[in-house]
Amino acid sequence: MNPHFNFELKATHNHARVGVFHTPHGDIHTPIFAPVGTQATVKSVTPAQLEELGASLVLANTYHLYLRPGDARIASLGGLHRFMQWPHPILTDSGGYQVFSLADNRKIDEEGVTFKSHIDGSFHRLTPESSIAIQENLGADIIMAFDECAPPYDRAYNERAMARTHAWAERCVKAHQRSDQALFGIVQGGIFPDLRQQSAEFIAALNLPGNAIGGLSVGETKAEMHAMLEVVDGVLPKEKPRYLMGVGAPEDLVNGVLRGVDIFDCVLPTRLARHHAAITRSGRINLANAIHQDDPRPIMESCTCYTCQRFSRAYLRHLILAKEMLAATLLTIHNLQTLLMLMKEIRQSIMDGTLDTFTAQFFARQE
Amino acid sequence: MNPHFNFELKATHNHARVGVFHTPHGDIHTPIFAPVGTQATVKSVTPAQLEELGASLVLANTYHLYLRPGDARIASLGGLHRFMQWPHPILTDSGGYQVFSLADNRKIDEEGVTFKSHIDGSFHRLTPESSIAIQENLGADIIMAFDECAPPYDRAYNERAMARTHAWAERCVKAHQRSDQALFGIVQGGIFPDLRQQSAEFIAALNLPGNAIGGLSVGETKAEMHAMLEVVDGVLPKEKPRYLMGVGAPEDLVNGVLRGVDIFDCVLPTRLARHHAAITRSGRINLANAIHQDDPRPIMESCTCYTCQRFSRAYLRHLILAKEMLAATLLTIHNLQTLLMLMKEIRQSIMDGTLDTFTAQFFARQE
Repeated sequence: MNPHFNFELKATHNHARVGVFHTPHGDIHTPIFAPVGTQATVKSVTPAQLEELGASLVLANTYHLYLRPGDARIASLGGLHRFMQWPHPILTDSGGYQVFSLADNRKIDEEGVTFKSHIDGSFHRLTPESSIAIQENLGADIIMAFDECAPPYDRAYNERAMARTHAWAERCVKAHQRSDQALFGIVQGGIFPDLRQQSAEFIAALNLPGNAIGGLSVGETKAEMHAMLEVVDGVLPKEKPRYLMGVGAPEDLVNGVLRGVDIFDCVLPTRLARHHAAITRSGRINLANAIHQDDPRPIMESCTCYTCQRFSRAYLRHLILAKEMLAATLLTIHNLQTLLMLMKEIRQSIMDGTLDTFTAQFFARQE
Repeated sequence: MNPHFNFELKATHNHARVGVFHTPHGDIHTPIFAPVGTQATVKSVTPAQLEELGASLVLANTYHLYLRPGDARIASLGGLHRFMQWPHPILTDSGGYQVFSLADNRKIDEEGVTFKSHIDGSFHRLTPESSIAIQENLGADIIMAFDECAPPYDRAYNERAMARTHAWAERCVKAHQRSDQALFGIVQGGIFPDLRQQSAEFIAALNLPGNAIGGLSVGETKAEMHAMLEVVDGVLPKEKPRYLMGVGAPEDLVNGVLRGVDIFDCVLPTRLARHHAAITRSGRINLANAIHQDDPRPIMESCTCYTCQRFSRAYLRHLILAKEMLAATLLTIHNLQTLLMLMKEIRQSIMDGTLDTFTAQFFARQE
C-alpha cells in the first residue's frame, strides 16, 4: 500500500460513501467534483478564485499539455503544481480519450496510437509508457492509465478496446515509477454488463490506489449509465476511491454518488458559463435571454457565491451582450460553486444519515 | 461650493500637488490613475480584484452605456454604482469624444450631434442637455461637460470647436441638477497656446468643482502636450482638481503630475494586457515572445501584484499561446498595479519632498 495515498471511509449510506483520500498536496474529501483545467488553467478564473470557491482537486489534460507547452518544459519549471499555481491536488488524464476523439486524425495499433496535433498538424505517438512518462513529468497527484474509449453500443469494438485497455493498464503499472503519484486504472466495456463486470474485475486485480470508470456519458442513455455504474460498484473494492470520468451534470453527480462513485470531473460548468448558461438546482438559466434585462435579482437567491452575492441578472445579461469577459468569469464562479456546494451537501447528508431525504428533495426540484 | 466635493490640497512641490477629492462614494487621493470600465466593467477583472489592487476612481463611458444597456435601465436598477458593483467613486465622460470618433457616422450642428450606433446602425442624437440627463441617470460622482474634440493641428477647426465647447459647457451647467454629482468643464484648443489660455480662462470662470483638459494625446507630440499642460496649469484654479483625459502611459503620468495634473484615465493598461504586453517601469514586455517560454521569473521581481507574486513569464506565455482568458486577467492585474503603484509613489514623494529624486530615477530607467 502506498503510504501517500491512504483512503479513509468516514461513512456510508447504502452504496453512497463519504471518505478522505490523502495525497501529497492535501486531502480530497469525497464525494467530490473536480473542475477541469485542460491547458493548466480552469478557464475564466484565477487559482485564487478557485480557492475561494473551496475547490480542491483540479484536472488537467495530458494531451494538451504534452503538445503545448510540453511536459519537459513544465517539469523543468518545477512541475504542474508550480506552473499553474495550484498547490492542492491535481489529476491528469492519460491523453487516451482526447486522442481517440481525434477520429480521422489518429491510428491505433497494439503498441499505441499515432495522431495528428490539432494545433499544427504535426504527427505524434502516445503509448502506455509515454503517457506515464509525460504524466510523471507533469507531476499530478493522481495519474491515469492509458486506455481506449470505444463507442458505447458497438460490442465487437468494445471487446477489442477492453482487451487493449487491460493490456495497456498492465504496461502502465510497469512503467510507473514515482511513488508520490497514484496511478488509477480505468474500467471500460461500453453498455455491456458482462464486459463491465469482466473489466472491473481485471482492473480491481491490479490493486492500484484507485479505480476509474471510463466510456460513460458518451452517447448512452442515463438508464444504461446507471446500470453500468451498478455493475462496476459491485466489483470494485470498496476501500479505494472510484472516479467516474467526464460526468458533471448535477443529476448525474447525485446518481453517481448513489451508485458508489467518489470522484467526478467535467468541463460542463466552465463550458456552460462561456455559453451564457447558469446551473441551478432546478435546471439551467440562459442569461442571454431578454427576460433578464431588467431583473435585479441574482441567479439564485440562496447562493452564497461572489456572483450571486453581488450581481444582478440584468448586469450579467448586459455583460453577455457587450461580449465582456467578466460574464464568463462570473458565470464560471457561480456554476462551480453550485456543483461544489452540491457535493458538500451530499457529503454532509451521508454523514448525517439524511441522504434519502436530500436526494428526494433534489430530484423533486429537477425540471 | 458643493459640500459633497471638497478638494483638500495636502502638499505641493513646484507644480505637482497631492490632494484629497471628497465624493459621495469616498475619497480620491490625487494624483490618481483611473482604470477605464467602458461598458460598466474594467475589462478582464472583477470589482473584487480591482479593490485588491487599491483602485478607487473608475471611469465608464456614457456613449456605450446610453446605447447598451441604456441609461434609464441602469437608473431603474439603482444606478451605475450598484449595477457594476463599484461602491467607490465613478466618473462618466460625456459621450462627446466617442461620438466625434465616429467620423463619417456623425453630423455636428450648434444644437448637438446626430450619430449612427456602432452596434446596430440606428440613429441617435446627443446634446449637452441629453448628455447631462444620461449622466444623471447613470449617477457617477464626477460627470463631464459635452465637448467637441478637434484634430490638434487644425487652427480654424479648433477655434470653432472651442467656441462650441464653451457654449455647450454653459448649457451643461444649466441642465445639471443633481447636487451629488460634480460636473467638470473641459478645456480644448488643440496645440495652440492662445486658444488653450482662452479656453482655460472660460472654463475656470464657470466655477465648477473640477476642470478637465481634453483634446490631448490625440496625435500631437509629447513636447506639444507638455506645453499645453503648462499653459493650462497657469490658468486653472489651484484649489480644484485637474483631470487630463485619456492619458495613461507611465511617462505621461509623471509628466502630467509635474505640470499640475491630479486625475488621469486611460484604456492603455487594460488594452495592452489583452494584447500580451506588460507595463514595467523601464518599458513594455511582450509576453507572447518566445524568449519567455522557459523563464521562471515573474514579469517584475519587485512587483507585489498577484500575478508577479505567483506566476512565471513561462506560464503567462503559455496562456497567451493557448488563447486562455487568464492571460488577459493576469496581465491586466499587473498593468493596473504598475500604474496605481506609480501614482502612490508619486504621492508619497510629493509628501516627502523627494519628487525631484523620484522623477530623475524614473526617467533614467525609461528605455
